[in-house]
Order: sequence, then C-alpha cells, then structure tokens
Amino acid sequence: MDIRPEDPTELPTAHRVALLSQNEKVFHVILAQQFDREFIDHLVRIAEMVRTIADAKPGAMFLKSLLGHKRAMLYFIQPSTRTFMSFASASQILGMPYDEVRDRSTSSEHKGETEDDTVRVLSQYCDLIIMRHPVEGFAERMAHMLNAMRRPVPVINGGSGKDQHPTQALLDIYTLYRCFGGPLAERVAPHAEKNHFAGKTIAFVGDLKRGRTVRSLTYLLCRYPGVRLLFVSPPELAIGEDILEYVRRHGIAYSIERDLRAVIRECDAVYMTRLQDEWDTAGESKNIDYARYHLTADMTDQFKPDLAILHPLPRRHELDVRLDADPRAKYWDQVRNGMWIRAALIAYLFNVDGAVLDHYQSYYSY
Amino acid sequence: MDIRPEDPTELPTAHRVALLSQNEKVFHVILAQQFDREFIDHLVRIAEMVRTIADAKPGAMFLKSLLGHKRAMLYFIQPSTRTFMSFASASQILGMPYDEVRDRSTSSEHKGETEDDTVRVLSQYCDLIIMRHPVEGFAERMAHMLNAMRRPVPVINGGSGKDQHPTQALLDIYTLYRCFGGPLAERVAPHAEKNHFAGKTIAFVGDLKRGRTVRSLTYLLCRYPGVRLLFVSPPELAIGEDILEYVRRHGIAYSIERDLRAVIRECDAVYMTRLQDEWDTAGESKNIDYARYHLTADMTDQFKPDLAILHPLPRRHELDVRLDADPRAKYWDQVRNGMWIRAALIAYLFNVDGAVLDHYQSYYSY
Amino acid sequence: MDIRPEDPTELPTAHRVALLSQNEKVFHVILAQQFDREFIDHLVRIAEMVRTIADAKPGAMFLKSLLGHKRAMLYFIQPSTRTFMSFASASQILGMPYDEVRDRSTSSEHKGETEDDTVRVLSQYCDLIIMRHPVEGFAERMAHMLNAMRRPVPVINGGSGKDQHPTQALLDIYTLYRCFGGPLAERVAPHAEKNHFAGKTIAFVGDLKRGRTVRSLTYLLCRYPGVRLLFVSPPELAIGEDILEYVRRHGIAYSIERDLRAVIRECDAVYMTRLQDEWDTAGESKNIDYARYHLTADMTDQFKPDLAILHPLPRRHELDVRLDADPRAKYWDQVRNGMWIRAALIAYLFNVDGAVLDHYQSYYSY
Repeated sequence: MDIRPEDPTELPTAHRVALLSQNEKVFHVILAQQFDREFIDHLVRIAEMVRTIADAKPGAMFLKSLLGHKRAMLYFIQPSTRTFMSFASASQILGMPYDEVRDRSTSSEHKGETEDDTVRVLSQYCDLIIMRHPVEGFAERMAHMLNAMRRPVPVINGGSGKDQHPTQALLDIYTLYRCFGGPLAERVAPHAEKNHFAGKTIAFVGDLKRGRTVRSLTYLLCRYPGVRLLFVSPPELAIGEDILEYVRRHGIAYSIERDLRAVIRECDAVYMTRLQDEWDTAGESKNIDYARYHLTADMTDQFKPDLAILHPLPRRHELDVRLDADPRAKYWDQVRNGMWIRAALIAYLFNVDGAVLDHYQSYYSY
Repeated sequence: MDIRPEDPTELPTAHRVALLSQNEKVFHVILAQQFDREFIDHLVRIAEMVRTIADAKPGAMFLKSLLGHKRAMLYFIQPSTRTFMSFASASQILGMPYDEVRDRSTSSEHKGETEDDTVRVLSQYCDLIIMRHPVEGFAERMAHMLNAMRRPVPVINGGSGKDQHPTQALLDIYTLYRCFGGPLAERVAPHAEKNHFAGKTIAFVGDLKRGRTVRSLTYLLCRYPGVRLLFVSPPELAIGEDILEYVRRHGIAYSIERDLRAVIRECDAVYMTRLQDEWDTAGESKNIDYARYHLTADMTDQFKPDLAILHPLPRRHELDVRLDADPRAKYWDQVRNGMWIRAALIAYLFNVDGAVLDHYQSYYSY
Repeated sequence: MDIRPEDPTELPTAHRVALLSQNEKVFHVILAQQFDREFIDHLVRIAEMVRTIADAKPGAMFLKSLLGHKRAMLYFIQPSTRTFMSFASASQILGMPYDEVRDRSTSSEHKGETEDDTVRVLSQYCDLIIMRHPVEGFAERMAHMLNAMRRPVPVINGGSGKDQHPTQALLDIYTLYRCFGGPLAERVAPHAEKNHFAGKTIAFVGDLKRGRTVRSLTYLLCRYPGVRLLFVSPPELAIGEDILEYVRRHGIAYSIERDLRAVIRECDAVYMTRLQDEWDTAGESKNIDYARYHLTADMTDQFKPDLAILHPLPRRHELDVRLDADPRAKYWDQVRNGMWIRAALIAYLFNVDGAVLDHYQSYYSY
C-alpha cells in the first residue's frame, strides 16, 4: 500500500474499496478475508500509533478531536461484554459518541416491526453501525440492505453466528505482531515486505470446530508465507475442512494434532480455546476428554522462552489461572489490543488514519 | 414572533412562557396544543439550520459546544427504540451528556420507593428530564411536581399513555414543511405569515382511534387555515369526537372516509398508521378488514407526483416495503427529521437557539 | 494535610497512600475508615469548589477538560439508580467517558467465565472501576486482585453487601458540613483544625442494624471530638456492638434510645432510615412497631430552628412527604451533594484536585 509521506492524510482508496461495498461511498467490514497483508500492516501501524499517542493527555485529547462530529450505533443482539466494551472504548478514544441496542425487549420489535426495519431506523441516527448477532451472515445481509438506502452507513461485523468475527482476528494478529515484530520503532515503520511470521509455529488448541475466532485468524495467517499452523483438537472438534482447503490453497504448512503436550515445545504461539458446548445439540461434548487440550502451569518447563500464550476469552479450565503471572501470558494484553486495533479500524473507515499518522510522525518520530 | 436580527441570542420569552409552567424559571413541553404557528415556524427554521450546520465538521463541533455544560436524563419507562435514540442523538448533536433509566428493575423501586420520589431524585442529577411513560398525563403531573422542588428542571414529554406525543407531532409537521415548503433558502427565511399548508389535502389512514401521533399532529395542523384533512379508517377505529370538535372549532375542513383507494388521488400527503392491537381489550381488532387501509405499490399510478408518504413507524403490512425505493416515501426521512427537530427544541429550551441562528446567518447566508 | 499554596497542583501523596493499596501506583477507595479528618476536610473543600465552578458555563467546561483522557467502568451488579447516576454524573462533570455493566445476563458469565476474569477483562478498557455488588468485601477483594495485574486500575467501592458504602458516608458528612459549617467562604477556607461538629447532637433513627449507611457515617463522625450520637431504634434493629465499641474507643459520647419523639428536641441533625426488610430471613420485621421511628409533619414544633433532616433514600413512610417543603429537609440536597463529593473524590484519585483548587483560587477568591 502506498502511504504517500508527502501527504499522509491522503491515503489511497484502493484498500477502502477492497472492503465489501456496492456503491462508492460506503465501506463495510464483514469478513476477515477482506483484509490483505498491506491492509493489516497498515492497521497495525495505526494501532501502535494510537496507543502511543493516547498515553499522555495532549495526545489523548488530539485523538478525541478526530471523530467528535460522527456518531455510532452498537447493535449487539447477542450477549457480549468484551467485544461491546472494546468497540465502546475505541469510540470513546476517538471522541465519537455512540448509543446501543442490546436488548430487543426495549425496542419496537414487540410491536411487530421486522429487524430489517429496526436497522433501517437506527441507521438514520448514526454514521456507523457495529453489529453482533446470533444469525450467520446477518452483518453481510444488513450491509447490502443499507447500501440500498438513500443514506447508507457502513457496517462493522462484531461477530455473527458461528461464522465470522473479523475484528477478533485483527486483534489476534495484532497481538502476534507485538510478540514477533520487534521493538516499537520497527513496528511503526513502513515495511510491507517484511514478514515477521515466517518460521513461526502457531498452535490452535481445543474446540476448533465451533470457534469462529480460529477460523477468522486462520484466514489472516494465510497471508504470511512460511508460517506453520498446528490444529490441536479432539477428532470430534476438528477444524473445518473448508478452512484446511483454504490453508492448502495458500501454500501454508500445517498439521493435525491430537495432544497438546506432544507439540508444545515447538510452539512460538499457542492459541487456546474453550469448549463451546453452548452449540451442542445433544450434549455430545460430555464424552470428550478435553483435559488433553488444557495448558497448565506444570508445562512451563516445555515452553519456549518467548512463547506467546493467547486466548480469545472467556476461559474455563483449559487455561490455568496460575499462568496469569507468567510474562508469556498475553491474553489480557489481547483484550487491550482489541481496543486499539478497533480504534485504528474506525479511524480508517472515517479516513482519519492519515491524521493519526501525521500526528505521530510530527510528535513521536526521531 | 419577533426574532430581533440585531441580537439573535435574545429571543422573546413570550413563547417560552407559553409552554406549561408554574413558575417563571422552568418551561415544560407536555402537549402539542402548546405550540402556536409562530413557535412551529421558528422551530422548523432552527431545525433546518442545525442540520445544515451539522453537515461539516466545524459546524458539528460548534453545535457540540452549545450544551456541554448541561446534562439530561432520559426516563423511558415504556419500550421505545426510535424516540429514545432520537432524543439521545439530539443530545449528542448539542454536546449534552445524558443518562437513562429504562428498566425499573435496576432502580430503587423494588425497595418500595414511589415513582414520584424516583423522579425527584433523578432531577437532582440533571438539567432536563425527557420522559416516556405508559400512564396518561404522567409527564404533566411530573412537571407540576418538579415545579414544587427547590431546584425545578424542565420536562419534555416523549409520549405518555394513549394520549399525547408532542415531539412526534413536531417531527411530522417538520417533515410536511420540508415537502411543501419550497427550497432551503425559503424554509430558513423568516416568513411567519406564509402558510405552506393552504390548499393541501392530508389523509390520516388506519387506526385513528388509538394512534396518539394522529391526535397530536391534528392539533398542530389546525394552526394552518386552508388545509383539508381526511380521516380514513374503519368505523371501529374512527378518530375521537373530541378531535373532530377541535378541528371544527378551528374552522378546518375535513371529511370522514372509509376507503383509502377512493381518496388517494386527492392526497398531497398520506399519513399511514398501523393497527394498534396492543390496546385491544378483547381481541376486537381481529374482526376488522384492515386491508382497505393499506398503501400498496400497485396504487402508485394514482399517486400525485409530489405525494408525501409518512408513517410514524413501526409499520406492519399497511405500508408496502416495495414503496421504500419510491422518492415519495418520506418515512425514513421522518426518523431523521425527528432528531433535528428535537435538537432544535432542546436548543430552544436552553436558550441557545439564538446562537444557532447567529451562527447560521454568519456562515451560511448569502 | 499540607496543601502547599505555592503549588496547589502538588498535593501531598501521604493521604493517597493512606488509601488501601499494595503497590505505589494505585489507590483504592474501599472503606469509610480510610478517611481521616484532614482528607475529609480537603474533599469537602474540593466539592464546594467544584459545585461553585460548575455553576457557569466557562467553569463547567474547565471541569470537563480535566479527565477527558481517562475512562471509567461502572460495574453495578446490584439494583441502584441513585448511586449509579451519582457516579455517572460525577464522571460527566469531569468530562470522563464511562461505560457500564449492570446486568450479568448481557455478559460472558453465561459462558462459564468467573467474575474475577470479568473484572480483569473490564480493567483492560478503563482507568478506574467503580463497583457495587451484593457480596460483602467484594470491592476489597477485587482491589487486591487488580493490584496483581500488570496494569492495575483503582477501585471505588460503591457499596458492597450489608457492609460498607464509603461514598455515601462522604456525601452524608458533606451534607452535615454544609448545614453546620457556616457560609461558603468559610467552608472553602483551609481550616483543618476547626471542628464544626463539636457540641452537635446527631440522631440515627430506624433500622440501624442493617443500614450500611449508618455504619459508614458513624465511622466518619468519630473523627470529630465533641459530637454526640443518639442511636434511636427498636431493640431488634439496634446498631451493631462492633460500631458502639468503635465509638467508645474514639471517646465519642452516645446514647441508645427507643423513642424518636422523646429526643427530637435535642437534635441538630436527624438521620432517618427505612426498614430494610429485604434482609429479613423469616419476616421478623412484621412484628416491629416502626411508627415510633417515623418523622412526621406534626413534630415540627419540636424541631430546632436549624435542624437538618437527612435520609439516604429511598424512603417509605418513616419520612413524611409533607416535610419535603420544609427548608430543614436536606435529603434532596443530599442526593445532589453526592454528585459533587464523588466528583471531588474522582478528581483526587486522578490527581487533578490541585487543578480545581488552583482554578477556584484564580477565579473565585476574594
């Protein structure tokens, strides 16, 4: 991506167009597959800059000045604390007021309104809708519907169905950049050609069948030649064949594993997931020996010194609380990284990422 | 109304006093009947200015500077997405922080507190209470109660009972101004004497008995001599005799109709409403043939070229989704208009409408 | 406390350290016993200044500039309107964005997350957690837990269990300062040695066994030699022996009373409480004659001319609504005082109380 240093506020629109859209004015964030290497590199840089700028009051106030004239709607029709709060915090960081619909019982739907009409109405009040919904493909369908309105607004998919969770994938890969990417100065430098993931082994562990975060992150990792993926799960919870086909098509090395202890020594990063038994149809999870997919404190002597331990949270027993104090535990950082990368994404959607870049280069560059 | 051009921040207080009040400091917005022609004309001008100013960032930031020192409380003890969001957005536009009570289960009422005490307490935290409530006359009673406090705060009625919904009436008439009132330059010019509604035929269609929006808007339309009203409904859902008496007393022509198809050709505006069967006491709506009060896409050849189609929403089947793409469909605009006219109303209550006028005349006048 | 007039932004950290903390960076507000005289005097001064400064728009905008770079989380897992709104309003006054968790059904806990993990996650998004919880000692436990995180954030206890409610105690004593403390000029002057409570008789009336506000305020009043406390309650609802022991240890005069009418003439302040029968285990409150602990309008001829009537609210019948119009009724003021003292406390936690002091001395001093 060509970020012209002579005018950083004028970012190329090529990548904005790359986001799913049916007209030229509005860009939606729906699928992890939308993001190419160049885009991810750019967004990670912006996120690193936002968090650095936000650290002192004058910088924080600059960030808050960016989107005070916009307003967002958080339409979260599925229980979620962390994703909701992450987007809410990102909006606050950029000074963008927002409102929320989280409970259909307070809405007009009890009067017989369709959900389509509800979203059409909400779109009148705002400049961006961030949505989370139990139905697969919901965000994408809403994006198409809104494109047909006289005043379309962009949609960010905050998770729909068992399917996709693209901003979780962004925060996960951002966390990996921070683990593998060297010091800050290197992370904020333009280096589209540099691939920090080459030679790294990343294990996905647990319920890979039903964890949408694993699917989304795998799509992104396929943009990094030389990375090696381990899918460590019981056979009943194996990663979907469609994902493996995608991995193969992109020439990424992978292997299927059954025992975490057998491979933990090789891992540069381990991405733990909980048993998602809320998707069970007949209690089938009860027969699975999930203990083989636990990461426990007694395994630390097998960890590489720079192992990165990730977890999308919430966790249960698969991730030992005694590991929390280990500096290799990155899952709390992941939470906070999500806030920064979402702020970067929103800045990008409203075309103020250039202003962030400009501010950073003026005040923080050597 | 005399808006003195030499000092636009000094608006006459005569009309503020016209709002229901028991002392000289606080003005409440309770009933559509409070609003006279001069007031509506003024508020529509301010709304047009607010939306114009808000369109670019510097203007939006000016608007946000107006009420940063005030705080509002949204007390919404009745399911409502659109009215709530509309007031919330209006508050955001003016930079006024707000908080909300929407669910009595999180409040102290389970500890035996009366609702009067709850409202007295909430009034301590804010400078304005916007309320929506299932009980008729609630907002008015609270206005009187708060007038007796040492520190009274104004009340805006966001809808109470089957009764009144004055700000919905304001957004409806504002939408009609935008349809009938000529270009923007004319709409923002002072022209209290000009009556854009003379000669226009406006049909109210459907459940006129139980729709409070119809009642409130009818009150306002009676301020426009020469308008003609059609009340199109099944006999069981006829408009209240008290409203007809009010219409007659103001010398407004009207007729009672039973079939929308028979009159649609004559209409300059058609105001659709849904069957409000939530007020049924014994399922009486089931026996009504409501299909005669539907507006459908196959009727478009009978529409006037400039017909304005309004609906307070939510809709069911009485308003064909295939009409959404017709430029005569104004119901999504109505939603957005509600946000602007409520911002204008709040600006007026806090006496910053003059600052809006001044800003507009400085930056947007020819 | 030594507030150096030559540099009011540099407040001594001794008292910050006095707040419960396990490392040097973070200070938590957990117990009323944390507050010494010097601290209370200081906070009352700041609260008086904040409310004075907030009264005009330029001052209000100054206050809003103080904490725009911070963000708060209100974790309120117990029904509460007034405490929640009070903290929310205090945050708004200081320009600090906040978000809330009030209902565990919208959170990840249904996915099997522990509450500890929920709080750890929330702490990533904010700079301060204000919490209210049904479990005794919860806030204190969370403060310890957060101290162990890489990025600890301060906790303010907004009430936990039957136990403690330290900020209610602060607003109560602030209300008493305003009643006993002379004119504003005197209240904002530095006068750590002056004790406005000496010689005053303060009666606690009603359910003293289960009212946590009574416990917390009593701790604070023990810092004022010469005050006299009356504990007026039925024997079944007597104040806890641990509190009386604390009172005796601090050399404060008190007596146990059974009849409000017998002592009302002596009172300079009367602190009414409701019957807290939600803590009943077997309906034992039903046998209590609570009418002897009611304050009624027919008792006014026995009131001292400057009696201060307080009530933490919500009230039931123990506090006659006909007293509301009496200038001695201070319970609505109490509500509003809570907002100001909480704003002062938050300003103190983030070390901007010095900026308030400085601003006040520049613009409001004689």
